[in-house]
Amino acid sequence: MQKHDKGRLIVISGPSGTGKGTVISRLMELRDDLCLSVSVTTRPPRPGEIDGKDYFFLTREEFSERVEAGGLLEHADFVGNCYGTPKDFVERKIDEGVSVILEIDVQGAAQVAKACADAVSVFILPPSGTELERRLRGRHTDSEEKIRSRLLEAKRECAEAAKYGYIVVNDSAEAAAREIDAIITAEKCKSAYRINLVTEVLIS
Amino acid sequence: MQKHDKGRLIVISGPSGTGKGTVISRLMELRDDLCLSVSVTTRPPRPGEIDGKDYFFLTREEFSERVEAGGLLEHADFVGNCYGTPKDFVERKIDEGVSVILEIDVQGAAQVAKACADAVSVFILPPSGTELERRLRGRHTDSEEKIRSRLLEAKRECAEAAKYGYIVVNDSAEAAAREIDAIITAEKCKSAYRINLVTEVLIS
Repeated sequence: MQKHDKGRLIVISGPSGTGKGTVISRLMELRDDLCLSVSVTTRPPRPGEIDGKDYFFLTREEFSERVEAGGLLEHADFVGNCYGTPKDFVERKIDEGVSVILEIDVQGAAQVAKACADAVSVFILPPSGTELERRLRGRHTDSEEKIRSRLLEAKRECAEAAKYGYIVVNDSAEAAAREIDAIITAEKCKSAYRINLVTEVLIS
Repeated sequence: MQKHDKGRLIVISGPSGTGKGTVISRLMELRDDLCLSVSVTTRPPRPGEIDGKDYFFLTREEFSERVEAGGLLEHADFVGNCYGTPKDFVERKIDEGVSVILEIDVQGAAQVAKACADAVSVFILPPSGTELERRLRGRHTDSEEKIRSRLLEAKRECAEAAKYGYIVVNDSAEAAAREIDAIITAEKCKSAYRINLVTEVLIS
């Protein structure tokens, strides 16, 4: 890693049942130049939640102003509350050399890709359809119909993987985390982000 | 690494005095899915050189036929002999899941980029112009004029770095090798090369 390397925005998606959470936890342990994205929300804080750490808590008016000003990389409504990814937080971290991990669904990832051409997108795929079904069945006590519907939805999401820059298969959380670790390192080595180093050699 | 991942062609350039050789040696130790490209040449074998290992030795006629048939990814003349990179060798290794390391000058790299859009290109940069000069002076017992000319040529080559996919700075051969290691892993994770894995999940 070069001292002048900036961070990158790393968008991670994958259907329910792929074990994204475990992979991301392991990834955070592997590198010391990462942070998780902190969302803005109009949902009121729950006891113990800290503004600026768990979320940035905004009023509906403040949220709308952010959207109007193009201050959010993506936003969506969820059970009556608004959520979004604040551009300024991500940009500040990137300038500090810290890469920001944003775990988000495929719709959100598509919005981010439009708003931020530099974003690195990674889709986490289950090792197989059979394994995906096993995980969905193991985790939920839902009806057969509900499981079928979740499985269909998960497979529909997998079909979006081609739109991502990278595909990582979670047959082992450790191996998947190491692949994303390598992706972040490689992305920082891209020539577009290191042109300043060429100038330094030429003038020194 | 997924068992079905194919290899990639990794083109590595960098001016004289950047320590490319040391970086590549270390890189070869880090992974077991790499090989060095074997060139074709019209130069006669030297004692001990093995056909297919050190070079593929060809007659001038065979060499010309290869060029005509588009069988070389790049070729050049050097002190009266012809040298080139055979496409079939590279493609066979890639199919076997082995990535091929091709150390080549900027002219050769430009030819390869045209012939093989999938090639991954890495430029190895010295840490600074001052360090480059120190290394060139340390290595050669040449005249001041010759050193000046080498330094100018090296800087001219560095100016081509922007045309490469990745830039790696060799301030430590170990760190530079690890960055190229990450680049190879990341390139194998690119979605274009793993679309078959999505299909597997969808149909299994």
